[in-house]
Amino acid sequence: MEHNVPALGDLSPDEFRRYGHQIVEWVAEYLEHPEQYPVLSPSRPGEVTAQLPIAPPERPESLETILADFENVILPGLTHWNQPGFLAYFSSSASVPGILGEWLSAGLNVNAMLWRTSPAATELENVTLDWLRQMLGLPAGFHGVITDGASMSSPLALAVARERLGLDIRNQGMAGRSELPRLRLYISAETHSSVEKGAIVVGIGRQGVRAVPVDQEFRMDVTALARAIEEDLAAGWRPFAVVATVGTTATTSIDPVPEIAAICQKHDLWLHVDGAYGGMAAVAPEMRHILAGVEQADSLVVNPHKWLFLPVDCSAFYVRDPHLLRRTFSLVPDYLQTSEEVTNYMDWGVQLGRRFRALKLWWVIRAFGHEGLAARLREHLRLGQLLANWVDADPDFERLAPTPLSTVCFRACPGDVAARLTQAGPEEAAGLEAYLDRLNEALIEAANATGEIYLSGTRLHGRYTIRLAINNVRTNEATVARAWELLREAAGRLHA
Amino acid sequence: MEHNVPALGDLSPDEFRRYGHQIVEWVAEYLEHPEQYPVLSPSRPGEVTAQLPIAPPERPESLETILADFENVILPGLTHWNQPGFLAYFSSSASVPGILGEWLSAGLNVNAMLWRTSPAATELENVTLDWLRQMLGLPAGFHGVITDGASMSSPLALAVARERLGLDIRNQGMAGRSELPRLRLYISAETHSSVEKGAIVVGIGRQGVRAVPVDQEFRMDVTALARAIEEDLAAGWRPFAVVATVGTTATTSIDPVPEIAAICQKHDLWLHVDGAYGGMAAVAPEMRHILAGVEQADSLVVNPHKWLFLPVDCSAFYVRDPHLLRRTFSLVPDYLQTSEEVTNYMDWGVQLGRRFRALKLWWVIRAFGHEGLAARLREHLRLGQLLANWVDADPDFERLAPTPLSTVCFRACPGDVAARLTQAGPEEAAGLEAYLDRLNEALIEAANATGEIYLSGTRLHGRYTIRLAINNVRTNEATVARAWELLREAAGRLHA
Repeated sequence: MEHNVPALGDLSPDEFRRYGHQIVEWVAEYLEHPEQYPVLSPSRPGEVTAQLPIAPPERPESLETILADFENVILPGLTHWNQPGFLAYFSSSASVPGILGEWLSAGLNVNAMLWRTSPAATELENVTLDWLRQMLGLPAGFHGVITDGASMSSPLALAVARERLGLDIRNQGMAGRSELPRLRLYISAETHSSVEKGAIVVGIGRQGVRAVPVDQEFRMDVTALARAIEEDLAAGWRPFAVVATVGTTATTSIDPVPEIAAICQKHDLWLHVDGAYGGMAAVAPEMRHILAGVEQADSLVVNPHKWLFLPVDCSAFYVRDPHLLRRTFSLVPDYLQTSEEVTNYMDWGVQLGRRFRALKLWWVIRAFGHEGLAARLREHLRLGQLLANWVDADPDFERLAPTPLSTVCFRACPGDVAARLTQAGPEEAAGLEAYLDRLNEALIEAANATGEIYLSGTRLHGRYTIRLAINNVRTNEATVARAWELLREAAGRLHA
Repeated sequence: MEHNVPALGDLSPDEFRRYGHQIVEWVAEYLEHPEQYPVLSPSRPGEVTAQLPIAPPERPESLETILADFENVILPGLTHWNQPGFLAYFSSSASVPGILGEWLSAGLNVNAMLWRTSPAATELENVTLDWLRQMLGLPAGFHGVITDGASMSSPLALAVARERLGLDIRNQGMAGRSELPRLRLYISAETHSSVEKGAIVVGIGRQGVRAVPVDQEFRMDVTALARAIEEDLAAGWRPFAVVATVGTTATTSIDPVPEIAAICQKHDLWLHVDGAYGGMAAVAPEMRHILAGVEQADSLVVNPHKWLFLPVDCSAFYVRDPHLLRRTFSLVPDYLQTSEEVTNYMDWGVQLGRRFRALKLWWVIRAFGHEGLAARLREHLRLGQLLANWVDADPDFERLAPTPLSTVCFRACPGDVAARLTQAGPEEAAGLEAYLDRLNEALIEAANATGEIYLSGTRLHGRYTIRLAINNVRTNEATVARAWELLREAAGRLHA
């Protein structure tokens, strides 16, 4: 169907009004009745594509048609991150104030590349990131910039750490310089993959990344770190940075940052702390201990789009030395020269075009208040412990990792299998473990197939593990109880 | 003022409805009456900050208060990219369908990292980018991925080009490998600064970037490029990539891509084409000649958020060999393993978390249709030529660069000054040029101070240049005529 699209210019504000109001109602209904849709899309590969034209439309189509196709073609192919039952990965949930703030940003379409190109966007970014710093209990002296995700924030940290070596890499690069040492970055076996990817990008290479072993609770082994550095120094490597994690992705383990910081200080290494998910828990004052040692870090990332109820994307990257950050990245061509003595965030990283993301951060912090945000995080932490207790009390399930935050790693291990495991020789044990892997994969599939929840899995010490992450603003005790019920039912059915 | 925020969970859908509808009306009014606000914010550094609390609120605040503060505190500090009078840099204008598509994305808050985490988001990205490829007249065999901007797309191209060398840089890195040659990237003196920044990031370094001179029309000098490569080869450098630009930032000059492609083929170099702004003109079929040679490029970037009326951010990055792209970036930890044979866009670049940007691209292409988009671009191109003609016909102004697209570079050069310049010795000429620089800077300031338009400047051959870019969906002939009128008035006043 065609509509009266003007020959030139934009569609009319009246058309905007009409469909804008429809979208308000649609999204309100979507948020109010999430149970209408299965959380994990049942779509099969190619199913959406098959319903879309191969070629773009030549003539304009009405917004009514587009909205209808959105509901009929696109929606069935979506996995619903905003639903309370989304318990996979780390969820990202867009709260009401987060969505409204984002909507204003889209309407304004401001680009915060230079202070001048929207002073309030730059200043609000500065102020709200300082608010967040205060809520986390971090000392003054951390300066923030918003990026689109930790996958960007972490490579920025690596690039600055590399620059800090004084090897003139910004100018001379790294290839073909025989005088350069090989550079070594230390992570743990549980560090997020984006750090290794960042190391590929900045030319450190995978071999330049040394994964230090973790202890039984998946925390970086500090003795092993110290030994690794000594070994590398003796072998001619130049250690330059350590990434510690507060809330690792698989198990949310918390690396011993104070001890790691001491080692970094001894060897003059850059310390970057990845608190993308877990660091945010410190917004609840009684949880501030998880950021112990971070005051000595050189950089930190926490993601408001993970556990502060902002729609993607919004990652807060903090450094203690913004001068060094700018020295690494600043390149200002003639057409971007301005005369003001101000913060131009384009100098703080790779990206020139920068959406006005501070606006939604401001909406969320104000709408909930520090206390309101802390209460929500506290409730998620409580629910994590509650589920951990249910698992521990059930003879047919077991936890496979500690639960320091709100993500629980566990598996079904039916009592009879558990009993046989305690007495099995290596070969039988391997067979039983393989059975448990299949059982738990099937459990996740069965739970996801209900459409009520979405869980993801991982492997811990080689064992297939169910991973249930509670950080969605709409997830409550009923959601967690229902997930637990579904898993227990399925386990009873699948383990004959 | 406090409001009834629930102790836990999200604000209610009813609150969303209430303020959502208010925001629809606000944005509609904003789009309908842009003249209410000066385009360039008159805010002074620190002025917004001074009106914001130093500490975050402890208690929840009402959305009504936040909305009021948005209008009273934030709005006066914004520069209005969405207004027709925004003629600085390259504008980014959010059309009605672009905003509505973005609003749905924010409400859904889908993360398109894996196919599984929202099949329709991945498939729609694939399909709409192929639509865009067809609209640009490019052959099949270019595979697209959406990034947040050319500042990200270009470093991706450099990282893949580096990987293609077969030097095992992904694994071994670059530092301390005496067998590695120094790597050289070729750009022109007019290439966007993000490419050089990308070279810093990937460890090529500024010295690894050779800026080839441009001809009088600011296009890369192909003979100089060929000579530079030969020189570098003789001196032991390893040339690995060339970045050609279709629509440079300062003057929108168009590099001779076919000739550059031939040189790349001869030396087996990666050819990346930066068409972030200018490449989009090929959506108008009669302009497809500007992409001549691009069919031989290895990668291309065009930005729908620049000249296809999408709100920031949306950059389309195309490669011919997605396998190589994935080989460069793919790292899949256990918790992200899935079994489907599908496209997982997290493997196509640095970023793991990925907003559902294809939705707004789909809305815009469908709402305007290929013909409607072409008509709008054609009108912008016509307006660019119209202004160029006005400048050429005015004895008190002169153009300082050709106008191949819709951005005009010119300056006031009053007739009497022009006459003196033709007869001046070097010293007097320098004085006159300095006067013209001051005059044109003052002109831009005067025009911007009216609040009706926002212009930016640059330097061309050392001369301060007014740069008027026409690529906003709401800019029409009246806007351009008014800008021209304001500049002529101001020139008459300032040149006594």
